[in-house]
Amino acid sequence: MGHFSLTNNQDTIAALATPPGMGAIGVIRVSGPDAISMVNAIFKGTDLTLALSHTIHFGRIIENDMVIDEVLVSVFKAPNSYTAENITEISCHGSPYILTRVLNLIIQKGARLAKPGEFTMRAFMNGKMDLAQAEAVADLVAADSENARQVAISQMRGGFSSEIKKMREKLVHFASMVELELDFAEEDVEFASREELKKLVKELSDIISALLSSFMTGNVIKNGVPTVIAGKPNSGKSTLLNAMLNEEKAIVSELEGTTRDFIEDEIHIEGFAFRFIDTAGIREARDRIEQMGIERTRQKMREASVIIYMFDLSVENEDSINQQVSELERLSIPYIKAGNKTDVASPALLNSLESQPGFIFISAKFKENLDQLKVRLIDLLDLGKVSVGDTIVTNARHYESLFKAKNALREVIDGMEKQASGELLAQDIRQSIYYLGEITGEITNEDLLENIFSKFCIGK
Amino acid sequence: MGHFSLTNNQDTIAALATPPGMGAIGVIRVSGPDAISMVNAIFKGTDLTLALSHTIHFGRIIENDMVIDEVLVSVFKAPNSYTAENITEISCHGSPYILTRVLNLIIQKGARLAKPGEFTMRAFMNGKMDLAQAEAVADLVAADSENARQVAISQMRGGFSSEIKKMREKLVHFASMVELELDFAEEDVEFASREELKKLVKELSDIISALLSSFMTGNVIKNGVPTVIAGKPNSGKSTLLNAMLNEEKAIVSELEGTTRDFIEDEIHIEGFAFRFIDTAGIREARDRIEQMGIERTRQKMREASVIIYMFDLSVENEDSINQQVSELERLSIPYIKAGNKTDVASPALLNSLESQPGFIFISAKFKENLDQLKVRLIDLLDLGKVSVGDTIVTNARHYESLFKAKNALREVIDGMEKQASGELLAQDIRQSIYYLGEITGEITNEDLLENIFSKFCIGK
Repeated sequence: MGHFSLTNNQDTIAALATPPGMGAIGVIRVSGPDAISMVNAIFKGTDLTLALSHTIHFGRIIENDMVIDEVLVSVFKAPNSYTAENITEISCHGSPYILTRVLNLIIQKGARLAKPGEFTMRAFMNGKMDLAQAEAVADLVAADSENARQVAISQMRGGFSSEIKKMREKLVHFASMVELELDFAEEDVEFASREELKKLVKELSDIISALLSSFMTGNVIKNGVPTVIAGKPNSGKSTLLNAMLNEEKAIVSELEGTTRDFIEDEIHIEGFAFRFIDTAGIREARDRIEQMGIERTRQKMREASVIIYMFDLSVENEDSINQQVSELERLSIPYIKAGNKTDVASPALLNSLESQPGFIFISAKFKENLDQLKVRLIDLLDLGKVSVGDTIVTNARHYESLFKAKNALREVIDGMEKQASGELLAQDIRQSIYYLGEITGEITNEDLLENIFSKFCIGK
Repeated sequence: MGHFSLTNNQDTIAALATPPGMGAIGVIRVSGPDAISMVNAIFKGTDLTLALSHTIHFGRIIENDMVIDEVLVSVFKAPNSYTAENITEISCHGSPYILTRVLNLIIQKGARLAKPGEFTMRAFMNGKMDLAQAEAVADLVAADSENARQVAISQMRGGFSSEIKKMREKLVHFASMVELELDFAEEDVEFASREELKKLVKELSDIISALLSSFMTGNVIKNGVPTVIAGKPNSGKSTLLNAMLNEEKAIVSELEGTTRDFIEDEIHIEGFAFRFIDTAGIREARDRIEQMGIERTRQKMREASVIIYMFDLSVENEDSINQQVSELERLSIPYIKAGNKTDVASPALLNSLESQPGFIFISAKFKENLDQLKVRLIDLLDLGKVSVGDTIVTNARHYESLFKAKNALREVIDGMEKQASGELLAQDIRQSIYYLGEITGEITNEDLLENIFSKFCIGK
């Protein structure tokens, strides 16, 4: 654990842990040494201070003899809780008014409102998880695709951390050996075989390189693929988007109401989230306002990771198509040429386009060949060979630390090749150990933690 | 309990119980005979089928050996649960994607998605609460003011029901006595003293009358007071609204984030919610579009329960004020004349207006005299003497049943005065018993229940 005091661990914190808004139930979470006694002071039911850990108690929240709500209180006793502190969770009727009242009461009893991520930060500071695991908790809550969920839960369960820690331990061992040599400097012994060290450093460098190169995919997994459907007006852009969204909605329709808010403009292909960015049709502007709209569309296209460019084959000709394709090329963004309305296209045009590489022929209206389009999306972005079972870096902070660790390892190799002193060698090894330690939180500081946990939701 | 079969009580139901959207945690609730075994089938941790009631278990939700989430499962065993059935609650990481996945898994194990209010309906059908109590659960979840909360929780805890039941029992007793007389018709005995019956019926009629007349207040408590701030442009309407909202926000600012969504356009005075309806300023329309806007404002004023009408005292004169007041009068809606900008008003105008009854002088900008305005709002709507400790009818269905019961009781009195036969008398008493029974659900039917519970949230 780091040596800092971002919070006074002796105080008791409270927050709403469920999403804001009205629901069947709302849960208020309290953590700290007084979590049980404070809630007990406003609770009429069994005596919570005598409760066993992991038990649930029905009773009433009371303020001056007035019943505020009938609730269930869950009791978790230190150290067997999420934060390793005493925790109570009050399951109230899900009225925002009531939840505020109850939260207020706990604050009055001496708790303070938790900062975002503060429960998880306490879990980290009390040794329940390392920093990479803690970060994965936020990723898991934000996970909105199968791959994002898998990567986050694997990282939360320590998969990524254990790889980092293994590397770190090996380096620590060598660093100690090299440092031991320094104590026997006069005798010119070599406790750490330079050959073995070189081999190890090369091996670790390779692992780190693989991790670094997984970050591009990791980013796609975590943040989805910004996707633009572009093309002239009436080329079928919204028909295509609706067709793909409807297919997805059909799959989850049984759960409608619980799902709607996160698939509104997203489709999932092979576990990846493709986030659609709305654009206006591109055409010759007839006036300044239209010109501005089209400029905005071009801006959005430049921000996309992939463009599905639609051609209305019922009205297009080859010249016009070639002109649009060359404009697309200039953007240097992966794109798919989708020839739409195949049902009403001229056979001659279809024939000649078929010889162009990379054209996909679809009918958005009749949902024809959409599967082929999806396969192409995955291929184009090189996502087909991603195995989520592998360790994948999804976090920019981890990427940066790995990058620095790799540079430090290069210094080690360089040093050995230049017959550098044991002292310098040890220093470079320690440097890479330092950077790896940043990832899992052996090395940390107040600002870093503040920065990480402030991005969490309240109550987590 | 009624004799109907709105649902097959043998099946197991599941739903998201927390509000939709991302949060620290999300809870899925499962109820029915297989609630524990179904969740156990997707859970890796302790064996939930062996768990004691009211205990919490850490573990993993598993699909084909893949970890979907790390969760806490709460176990409640029949009949010691909300529904009197086996219940499990799965506390997941609050990602809508994960919650949908887990809910889907339980559905795959044979549960079905719960209909709105179905958990509470089961609680009712299994005798855990009567119908008026069940209805109060939805009121409690929707409660967004102190008075609404108090009335709902008192009704949920059986306060209202016990009054109804007491009346009903007394009538049942008399009905039985009168019916007993019928068996001894030849002997012309009188088991039920007509004097006592008359006295009882009058007493009950009075109680019901009081309940009926509480409904107007009950409606205000439950739905808030639709309030319009009207007046000419620049009279200070939005300054006043912001001043009052800011005062309220200041009180709860410490809890910001958890409270914001329900006070956005509402202020609470003496525990009542005043809901503000936005209006455009009223003035001489300069064109047709402005005319339409002003017409809409007038429409909104007609729909309000109370109007705060603002006068800019820095520019108004008495003639203009009197003209606006007479327009207000024509609406026949309670209103407050608020003279604003007292700091820059002419002393002469202030002097002459002070003699007009009902004028309140404020400065919205400097938050002066806002308290007086609030007192006037409460007085004007006759809310000052409301004691939430009294039983208050807030439910239109209850109002209707009480109304019918009272009419039936009047028939009883009429019958007695006309020396009606015991048979007719018993019939009328039974009729009032029937209507009272509708309230608490001794008398019910499928359509009624469907209608009541369909308005609940999912998961409650």
